[in-house]
Amino acid sequence: MGQPPFTPVVKEGRVYARGASDDKGNMLAPVLALEALLQSEGRLPINVKCFFEGQEEIGSPTLPAFVAANKTRFACDFVLSADGGQWSEDQPALLVGLKGLAALQIDVVGPAYDVHSGLYGGAIQNPIHALAAILASMRSADGRILVEGFYDDVAPLSDSDRAEIARVPYDEESVRQKLGIDAFFGEPGYTTLERSWGRPTLEVNGIWGGFQGEGVKTVLPSEAHAKITCRLVANQRPEKIAELLAQHVARHTPPGVKVTVSIKENGALPYLMSGDHPGNRAARDVLVALYGKEPFLARSGGSIPVTAMFLESLGAYTVSFGFGLNDERQHSPNEFFRLENFARGQQAYCMLLHRLAA
Amino acid sequence: MGQPPFTPVVKEGRVYARGASDDKGNMLAPVLALEALLQSEGRLPINVKCFFEGQEEIGSPTLPAFVAANKTRFACDFVLSADGGQWSEDQPALLVGLKGLAALQIDVVGPAYDVHSGLYGGAIQNPIHALAAILASMRSADGRILVEGFYDDVAPLSDSDRAEIARVPYDEESVRQKLGIDAFFGEPGYTTLERSWGRPTLEVNGIWGGFQGEGVKTVLPSEAHAKITCRLVANQRPEKIAELLAQHVARHTPPGVKVTVSIKENGALPYLMSGDHPGNRAARDVLVALYGKEPFLARSGGSIPVTAMFLESLGAYTVSFGFGLNDERQHSPNEFFRLENFARGQQAYCMLLHRLAA
Repeated sequence: MGQPPFTPVVKEGRVYARGASDDKGNMLAPVLALEALLQSEGRLPINVKCFFEGQEEIGSPTLPAFVAANKTRFACDFVLSADGGQWSEDQPALLVGLKGLAALQIDVVGPAYDVHSGLYGGAIQNPIHALAAILASMRSADGRILVEGFYDDVAPLSDSDRAEIARVPYDEESVRQKLGIDAFFGEPGYTTLERSWGRPTLEVNGIWGGFQGEGVKTVLPSEAHAKITCRLVANQRPEKIAELLAQHVARHTPPGVKVTVSIKENGALPYLMSGDHPGNRAARDVLVALYGKEPFLARSGGSIPVTAMFLESLGAYTVSFGFGLNDERQHSPNEFFRLENFARGQQAYCMLLHRLAA
Repeated sequence: MGQPPFTPVVKEGRVYARGASDDKGNMLAPVLALEALLQSEGRLPINVKCFFEGQEEIGSPTLPAFVAANKTRFACDFVLSADGGQWSEDQPALLVGLKGLAALQIDVVGPAYDVHSGLYGGAIQNPIHALAAILASMRSADGRILVEGFYDDVAPLSDSDRAEIARVPYDEESVRQKLGIDAFFGEPGYTTLERSWGRPTLEVNGIWGGFQGEGVKTVLPSEAHAKITCRLVANQRPEKIAELLAQHVARHTPPGVKVTVSIKENGALPYLMSGDHPGNRAARDVLVALYGKEPFLARSGGSIPVTAMFLESLGAYTVSFGFGLNDERQHSPNEFFRLENFARGQQAYCMLLHRLAA
């Protein structure tokens, strides 16, 4: 397997990566495990196809077409991904859910140019008022998304999903203090972690229009704009959600302005797999053996688009089997990986391959 | 009276002003009229106190205190202002109403820093959503202002006010085309000109928050901001309106964000006088004699704060008696004044002083 693609610096129980990408400790563990198995046993316990991808940090632009064109070569029972982590140093986790993404921009145009608020105020539609009304129409005062059809395809959280999430010791108070907010806020009927992991969201990422400088300018502006991203859960699809939002905007556009909704980027599919998937059952057994604890069934509000892409293209689920922790400064200076997890990861991959062969 | 404070350039029936301020033709007419009366008749028909102000273009910062400290010297029956105009070359107008102004800024703060929409979306309040909800709560879908108490002090438009406004040939279709809008929009039950001249307004002048660049940034922003100005009519007061808006914002602030409302500038009082005021009756007689037509009773959505200041401080109404027209490029390069109106203004002031003496 040759040299690793970076020069690790080891000190104080940590391996520091030098290079452009994160998760080097994670990525190296399965490679070294395979090499160890081949050297010690002469063969691997099961058939393994290795897939190395170097585009992840730029959104894997050519990967979907490449996989689609090589379905036979990539055919497999499931994918094992080294990209992922555990809950803490002594608590394992299986990542079973990731959110998808739909991104849009709303552009509102009123008068052809900024006009004097004394001459035209109260007599023509103000694009900022129109935009505020459109945005306000999208969520109820208590945080429910009001876009018609938005929740239609959502895979609901089952009682066992909610029980699994409730097992996770999410420290709301420390997060609240870190963020400097008075209170959490979100869709009624769900806990904070259920909202973050298991419910779709609609957030305005940015808004602008008219005069933003110091002091007063009595202008009625020509334009107003907002950017929105929705985080999606199974079985929502970004193109359908974007269409529902466009329809909602059209229905809630007040008279006197023109509104355009444009889709930004292609979006990302959400991802959800069962904790009972054979790959997850095997991974669970290994984690229990290594940590002495039942893993959490974790989800993330973020996206790893390759998981949904493998599922769509190959019909194969991706089991996340990584050993990074959240405090390891991914993508930042002095990114590191714990040596104990580096060793544990190699051991875990050897155990997992044997477990899958059994 | 000495030299005029600029060098006029006359060509093609127009006098072009060189200097910093507009309305030079307007301002010079009464001065030359007084000089003409003194030279031809040896005395003025009535007592006249001349008041020259050089701060108008910078908001007259020291004028209110100066007038208040010299009330006896300034005591008068009414003020005659050369700042104003007529409706067109052949249609006179008396300006009887000007709007006041209240200016505020709304600052919404959520999390202490911009956060990842995948990690916290749906779980904490988004300042942009909060701001959109606050702004949307201020106006009904059909354009009525919903700030509690906002209309309480408004002097209603009487039947005769509305009849006077209806006399004015306001060409909605050409304005609509100039602005490039599909339709006018405003408070139900009023015509466009009634809204512009006689009803108070609330307009968002600017809004900003979060990501405004190209493409997508999946951020839930820390802050969002909006600037608002209200144009006020008699008998609203800017400090009360600002307080009502602050109370409304407090009542409509959703959980999870902190909102501050700050008053920008001191505001301006609205101004309204009767068309039957003795000064207006005299001005009307002169205008009918000069134009052969009954003047419109015009109002403006803009502000001339000195009118309300004289009324508050001296108890004296201001009769606007100027001869500029709207197309004369006030404050722009090649600002001009029509020679015929320059002559008409001098004649009009001589006639007005005689009429007042009668």
